[in-house]
Amino acid sequence: MNAVELIERKRDGQRLTDDEIRWLIEAYTDGTVADYQMSAMAMAIFFNGLDNEELAAWTGAMLNSGEVLDLSDIDKPKIDKHSTGGVGDKVSIPLAPIVAACDVAVPMMSGRGLGHTGGTLDKLESIPGFTAQLDPQAFRDVLTRVGFVMAGQSETLVPADRKLYALRDASGTVPSIPLIASSIMSKKLAEDLDGLVLDVKVGEGAFMPDMDRARQLAETMIGIGRSHDLAVTALITDMNQPLGRMVGNANEIAESIDVLTGEGPEDLVEITVALAEEMLALAGKGDPGSEVRQALDSGAALERFEAMVEAQGGDPRVVSDRSVLPSAPERTPIEAQTGGYIAACDARAIGIAAMRLGAGRERKEDSIDPGVGIEVVAKIGDEVSPGDVLAVLHHRPGDISDAIERASSAWEISEQPTTAPRLIHERIEA
Amino acid sequence: MNAVELIERKRDGQRLTDDEIRWLIEAYTDGTVADYQMSAMAMAIFFNGLDNEELAAWTGAMLNSGEVLDLSDIDKPKIDKHSTGGVGDKVSIPLAPIVAACDVAVPMMSGRGLGHTGGTLDKLESIPGFTAQLDPQAFRDVLTRVGFVMAGQSETLVPADRKLYALRDASGTVPSIPLIASSIMSKKLAEDLDGLVLDVKVGEGAFMPDMDRARQLAETMIGIGRSHDLAVTALITDMNQPLGRMVGNANEIAESIDVLTGEGPEDLVEITVALAEEMLALAGKGDPGSEVRQALDSGAALERFEAMVEAQGGDPRVVSDRSVLPSAPERTPIEAQTGGYIAACDARAIGIAAMRLGAGRERKEDSIDPGVGIEVVAKIGDEVSPGDVLAVLHHRPGDISDAIERASSAWEISEQPTTAPRLIHERIEA
Repeated sequence: MNAVELIERKRDGQRLTDDEIRWLIEAYTDGTVADYQMSAMAMAIFFNGLDNEELAAWTGAMLNSGEVLDLSDIDKPKIDKHSTGGVGDKVSIPLAPIVAACDVAVPMMSGRGLGHTGGTLDKLESIPGFTAQLDPQAFRDVLTRVGFVMAGQSETLVPADRKLYALRDASGTVPSIPLIASSIMSKKLAEDLDGLVLDVKVGEGAFMPDMDRARQLAETMIGIGRSHDLAVTALITDMNQPLGRMVGNANEIAESIDVLTGEGPEDLVEITVALAEEMLALAGKGDPGSEVRQALDSGAALERFEAMVEAQGGDPRVVSDRSVLPSAPERTPIEAQTGGYIAACDARAIGIAAMRLGAGRERKEDSIDPGVGIEVVAKIGDEVSPGDVLAVLHHRPGDISDAIERASSAWEISEQPTTAPRLIHERIEA
Repeated sequence: MNAVELIERKRDGQRLTDDEIRWLIEAYTDGTVADYQMSAMAMAIFFNGLDNEELAAWTGAMLNSGEVLDLSDIDKPKIDKHSTGGVGDKVSIPLAPIVAACDVAVPMMSGRGLGHTGGTLDKLESIPGFTAQLDPQAFRDVLTRVGFVMAGQSETLVPADRKLYALRDASGTVPSIPLIASSIMSKKLAEDLDGLVLDVKVGEGAFMPDMDRARQLAETMIGIGRSHDLAVTALITDMNQPLGRMVGNANEIAESIDVLTGEGPEDLVEITVALAEEMLALAGKGDPGSEVRQALDSGAALERFEAMVEAQGGDPRVVSDRSVLPSAPERTPIEAQTGGYIAACDARAIGIAAMRLGAGRERKEDSIDPGVGIEVVAKIGDEVSPGDVLAVLHHRPGDISDAIERASSAWEISEQPTTAPRLIHERIEA
């Protein structure tokens, strides 16, 4: 086959056959098809899309570019969750132990943060000693022993996606729904799951700014799941303001533990519980609501979390003693200039401010500072007086004027009363 | 500046500034912008285009990526012609000496053949000893001494185009009108011309299959000329059947000389004369028609051709003795299966058949056989009886069944009388 011919066909709005797609992904993975051909193909797909059949073949070819986990010896249902990413989105951290405490296996592979959004692995690695890099044997051991595991993706899984993702990032071809959906789903299909719950974030701080695009992404991923016999449920949830009160790394771990001890902020708890219930429903549990409550109230979920931290080399005292977590020495408040009601708290601006403090990465090769971050005090709907604290920046000594400016710009204060946004906009199932 | 950001803007239908375009072309030429970024940009341009201002900046940046000829010491008007390419299109070869005989300088830089279309340089190099590779000093010497020169493009001119053209060819981004137009015009602007005549071919055997696209390409190139103070006139001419009777290399040289001696086929003569008149009009000549007739009738054009061949190392006896040209030993006729009127003679099929015989290149690195080719006997409008010869293949011994099949498939014979197509469809001037 010929890469140029396939690019031309996609460019001209024609479809590619299963065989052609398989050939393309294999030839790209082994280097026969050049980066400059694949980036042109990705741009053609940005404009002309992939239909359901093409998408199934594309995802399957990506999946088959590497190893696929075989977790058939684990006799529990295996369910995972994927979030499209947001600011303050630490949901995975309390969610996985809750679900594991309900006797459902969670083989969770996560990513690192880039830009204004944080990454689950970075947050976990703020726990002293914790490692997210597990080889396949260690991954399986933790999963079997603790009932869940939270680690980075193995190098041997879906190498085509690793290569294509880096290429898209460098060639302006990231925001293509078929390419996003096949990237996510190929990685999740490689985990040998029985079910997957998607948390598709929508709003200013999310990858998908509007409901139409969010719904389209959710439905595309559900369609890929269907064509690969994986049950998928999606919740479309709000990301117009940061989730919870903490944005950073160590501070998000502390807040995650708060959820497990019953002291978490309302919005974070609501979304965590909703996603946990969806995961249990996919696992065939009859009364997900009461199982989740039981896992939290009994302390079973907290125990699971402690066991996972210990199994992955982290200091388990973190669950009862937050002082083992790193923190930053300086505190700078952002204060309300006028009184009124919080109308907006731009999650993207807060995410960028936190990144500038050192909590996130501007470029992939940047390192992060686990102790810095932002505590968001005022949320949409709250009433404030002039001088009230809207947020507190936790930082190192030095010039943080850029972060202060960014964070200050996030808020809009209205004279009219406002209401907190709905957290869960829509539920879509296969 | 940042390549990804510029790609994203063009992808999302926004425009690029002059500075951004200049930076992009410079950074691509020096390797700062990677091939995989430029191919994604080219695909985004395929979909979203470049407006007039962007196109002027893009072409200017390409032009300024290398050396630009300075022909200011030549005190004649300097006029060139560019054809978008077709089958049997040897027009440049008789055209340039006719125009030079009328005291207009023609600094013609041409290309080589690829696919179903031939190249002027390949045809000229079928003359024993002839070289189309002239260094800038030799190029200028021949131009000054003979009044015209026909050579390959110097490596030092428009290096950005050389790089981008190869990339587009390998990434499925060739047929983008702004990219085609800026590629052609940057090379022509580097020739330091006073005027340019475009022969935009339209039809089955041409790059532009329909009038709309052909007109759009012509108008785009005229617009670029306007923004760079170059007078451009375009003729849109027919390429639904091969031009003239000869398709190949040496045989096209012979037919070109026929035009100069008054024995050329009608269609080829008509287009050559029309283009010559347009070039003379751009040079400010008052009565182009009679000057062209005079150049042909007096033998002045033929003398100029002979002088150019000699100046570029070729055997000048070619003008009176065709036996100095290489030829192929075998002849195989294609015969009409039914009687009637020729309704079609697919130029692309004839071009591909000639390529398969060895007259053209499937890949850039292929070599060509100057002696082989196809003599097209029957043209649209001709009446034929069963068994009449439609064409004769000139070839080497061996299996040519593929070429026979391709060539045979070119003809359609109708029971109803047909008429030859108009040769010149439209004239567009600035």
